[in-house]
Amino acid sequence: MSLANLPAALADFRTAIGAANVFSSEEDRTAYADHYSPDETRHMPGAAVAPATVEQVQEIVRIANRHKVPLWQISRGKNFGYGGAAPVVKGSVVLDLTRMKRIEVDPEGGTALVESGVGFFDLYDHLQQNKLPFWLSVPGNSWGSVAGNALDRGVGYTPYGDHAAQICGLEVVLPTGELVRTGMGAMTGSKTWQLYRNGYGPGWDQMFCQSNFGVVTKLGLWLMPEPEAVLGYDLEFDGIDDLGWVVDTIAPLRREGVIRQAPSIGNWLRSASVMTTREQWTKTKGALGEDVVTAIRKRFNIGWWSVQLRTYGHVEMADAAAKVIARAFDGKPVLSMKPTRWLRSDGKPEGSPFSGVPISFPLANANWHGGRGGHVGYSPVLPAKGDLAMDQFRRTYALYEKYGMDYHASFAFGERSLTNVNQLLFDRDDPDMMGRVDAMFRELVADAKAKHYGEYRTHIEYMDLVASTYDHGGGALRKLNERVKDTLDPNGILAPGKSGIWPAASRGERA
Amino acid sequence: MSLANLPAALADFRTAIGAANVFSSEEDRTAYADHYSPDETRHMPGAAVAPATVEQVQEIVRIANRHKVPLWQISRGKNFGYGGAAPVVKGSVVLDLTRMKRIEVDPEGGTALVESGVGFFDLYDHLQQNKLPFWLSVPGNSWGSVAGNALDRGVGYTPYGDHAAQICGLEVVLPTGELVRTGMGAMTGSKTWQLYRNGYGPGWDQMFCQSNFGVVTKLGLWLMPEPEAVLGYDLEFDGIDDLGWVVDTIAPLRREGVIRQAPSIGNWLRSASVMTTREQWTKTKGALGEDVVTAIRKRFNIGWWSVQLRTYGHVEMADAAAKVIARAFDGKPVLSMKPTRWLRSDGKPEGSPFSGVPISFPLANANWHGGRGGHVGYSPVLPAKGDLAMDQFRRTYALYEKYGMDYHASFAFGERSLTNVNQLLFDRDDPDMMGRVDAMFRELVADAKAKHYGEYRTHIEYMDLVASTYDHGGGALRKLNERVKDTLDPNGILAPGKSGIWPAASRGERA
Repeated sequence: MSLANLPAALADFRTAIGAANVFSSEEDRTAYADHYSPDETRHMPGAAVAPATVEQVQEIVRIANRHKVPLWQISRGKNFGYGGAAPVVKGSVVLDLTRMKRIEVDPEGGTALVESGVGFFDLYDHLQQNKLPFWLSVPGNSWGSVAGNALDRGVGYTPYGDHAAQICGLEVVLPTGELVRTGMGAMTGSKTWQLYRNGYGPGWDQMFCQSNFGVVTKLGLWLMPEPEAVLGYDLEFDGIDDLGWVVDTIAPLRREGVIRQAPSIGNWLRSASVMTTREQWTKTKGALGEDVVTAIRKRFNIGWWSVQLRTYGHVEMADAAAKVIARAFDGKPVLSMKPTRWLRSDGKPEGSPFSGVPISFPLANANWHGGRGGHVGYSPVLPAKGDLAMDQFRRTYALYEKYGMDYHASFAFGERSLTNVNQLLFDRDDPDMMGRVDAMFRELVADAKAKHYGEYRTHIEYMDLVASTYDHGGGALRKLNERVKDTLDPNGILAPGKSGIWPAASRGERA
Repeated sequence: MSLANLPAALADFRTAIGAANVFSSEEDRTAYADHYSPDETRHMPGAAVAPATVEQVQEIVRIANRHKVPLWQISRGKNFGYGGAAPVVKGSVVLDLTRMKRIEVDPEGGTALVESGVGFFDLYDHLQQNKLPFWLSVPGNSWGSVAGNALDRGVGYTPYGDHAAQICGLEVVLPTGELVRTGMGAMTGSKTWQLYRNGYGPGWDQMFCQSNFGVVTKLGLWLMPEPEAVLGYDLEFDGIDDLGWVVDTIAPLRREGVIRQAPSIGNWLRSASVMTTREQWTKTKGALGEDVVTAIRKRFNIGWWSVQLRTYGHVEMADAAAKVIARAFDGKPVLSMKPTRWLRSDGKPEGSPFSGVPISFPLANANWHGGRGGHVGYSPVLPAKGDLAMDQFRRTYALYEKYGMDYHASFAFGERSLTNVNQLLFDRDDPDMMGRVDAMFRELVADAKAKHYGEYRTHIEYMDLVASTYDHGGGALRKLNERVKDTLDPNGILAPGKSGIWPAASRGERA
């Protein structure tokens, strides 16, 4: 594999999909860089190509094989905090699927089949325009791709918020150019491709998540039937130590299915960073003093921690679940507990991410420090237990203080797990701060590893680092992945290094 | 690969795991044959080996590679209707994991980690003896293995009834002998192996379902927290045509999550075949007359179709869901609709498969014809729509009549699909009947294929036939599976032919 072959490959790409869809100027390359990263140059793409059809994707893959040029597939490239559109291997050609925008919705089954360039706003508009009674689940940054987000295991706010779990059938271009449909789609003209997940024989859908085994061109997704009601509570908690009992109160409700969406307990800065900027409160660098924190909390009337809980469904069902939640918090020291109530029969749209309306305001947290903001995500997965959450908080908080960073984190519930989503907010115009981020991140990963917790997802810069923590049997799972990688991608052209999986041709580049 | 190497392999197996755990007499081989099949000789094993530890499994796999002898892994071998313990390739050595019986339950997370030999009765006893407040989901024949049933995508009666979907982390011996842990288990000492499904990078758990990519030695499984209440209705319907509206009544309730278990609409014979035998009603061969059907239904007070619906959870939540169900059936022509109500606070065990109590009475249906009974399963997956279900019923019923067989079927709901589970009940002592089964099965598969429906699971005799219906892109998915198979199993020793996946060494044996 060689980047020296790029010019010849670009010529073939232009012939295949038209020069207007091949981007190789310095301006183009910068447009596909990771604008949230401390150093954009480390993962600068060599070029980008934007096919419009599955056949063009196949042709691009074949050309890449001929010239042994690495590709990096993106859906819409909005994976902020994890690398944006940029590749692991500098100089790779970004395979940008943004132009592939076809949508099919099955209004009886309640499913969608979307091409990879379809964004959350596109799908939302499609449902609205066609008056289809289904709700999306959207991530905090809804600029991205429905398919891309699900394949990277993004999360949302509704009972369909585990996006990878909603996948039902894929169409994939393999690294050697063959086209495969997974699940029931493996039957020509299948009537159940988006309706039944398992298919016959091994289940492949989850194998294309966070992987470099193929380019997903179409993704089947289950949609939530619009409910009669969305009820629940917005809760604020005053004390740092409240985290423990709050986790222990919510965990059984989540495990028992009383709460079916994924609540996320966030700290004050998660709330505040989208409403204000740091310089409005202090000019002092380094970790914030408690006086500043208290002033900000008072101004916006927010707890040290907050969480929103929602129940969905027929009115009496959502009501019953909300009552069980209220009982669970009865007599406990909440700062505030505000009921929320939306009924379809009232005729007004719910209008929040809890009904899958696309949003982008959480991106505002990149402005917290002023300057050119950015962040990197650190997200270890723990058991859903209060004492472990508190311990995780204390250790991590100490590392934020050690490195002089502002603590921005949440604890997001899976059905039996808790993902501690940290966003290390930084100012890319502050060289001193930027010099601390890498060491801090590495110490955080080592801290999680010492507790036997793994990250669920990570930034392109740290994919090898995180992969190295999955070390059972001498890295047996990584070796399995690389055996499959070598079979499916003998020239190693597709996304080398993604999730720490390197093809034979470039295995020496592992960090 | 050659069966001529069997004697030398057996000698090595005896050295590795002790002669007492290697079974090669004719009596032994017959014990591992498929006792429900029309012709046991077609898939007669060559021998069986029963290791007790993971290390012994690895050693057996290495010996099989040395001698190029095919293995066929079974958990407990109770896969009746789909091949029992018998292999696709006659003469294969059955790798029987029955002796591997370790159970670990995480009482806080509500999960189990079971070795493959753990049966439903074993796990049930473990929960009872340790007073752990979790319920299983069991299949109609609970003699089998918890892991084996999940890996073959078996189903049960509770909200955890999609058994493959409850898998969370596996330990697997690869065909070349390496040991791999999937998901979070890929980290040494992981605290979240059974708590978080996705892991980091490609998701492998479902790849070991219905596949021959590895021998699963441990399986993580989510358990249902014991609910406060199980409520619902037992419904009977008088007319054949009721199937259509019943499907259309239940389908939205299932899709919206009002009903979270998987209801199954069964015909009168599903109910009757476990309570009586055919000869008590008629001596006439061939399809049953309506007079006989009517007499049986009258005697047992059952509808032409019946279904049981259940809601689970906190009392007010289960009650609310039951009310929505009652409203959906309000004014519709049910024959009977009997409410059921179990409350934990009453202090009595629920005691039915709806609370995951292991059962074996459905196996009694093999006695329907008298003689040595058996059956073969035919189970295409359709969209959950009444008109399609009725059409499926009519076409299939006509084929039962054409072949002079008694119609025994159900329509089991997935969240968005309907699996038409047929059991072709037969009398293995009736050569005339046995002569019709194969032709009938093949016509059924062709009939489903013509409607673009695929089987979700099939008998070892028909794995190639069913695989051939998954023909998109010239069988692209099968080719992908076989590329992976060749990489993971270069000598082709593990379960050649399973789910229609053949290793290079024996690809010519495809039917």
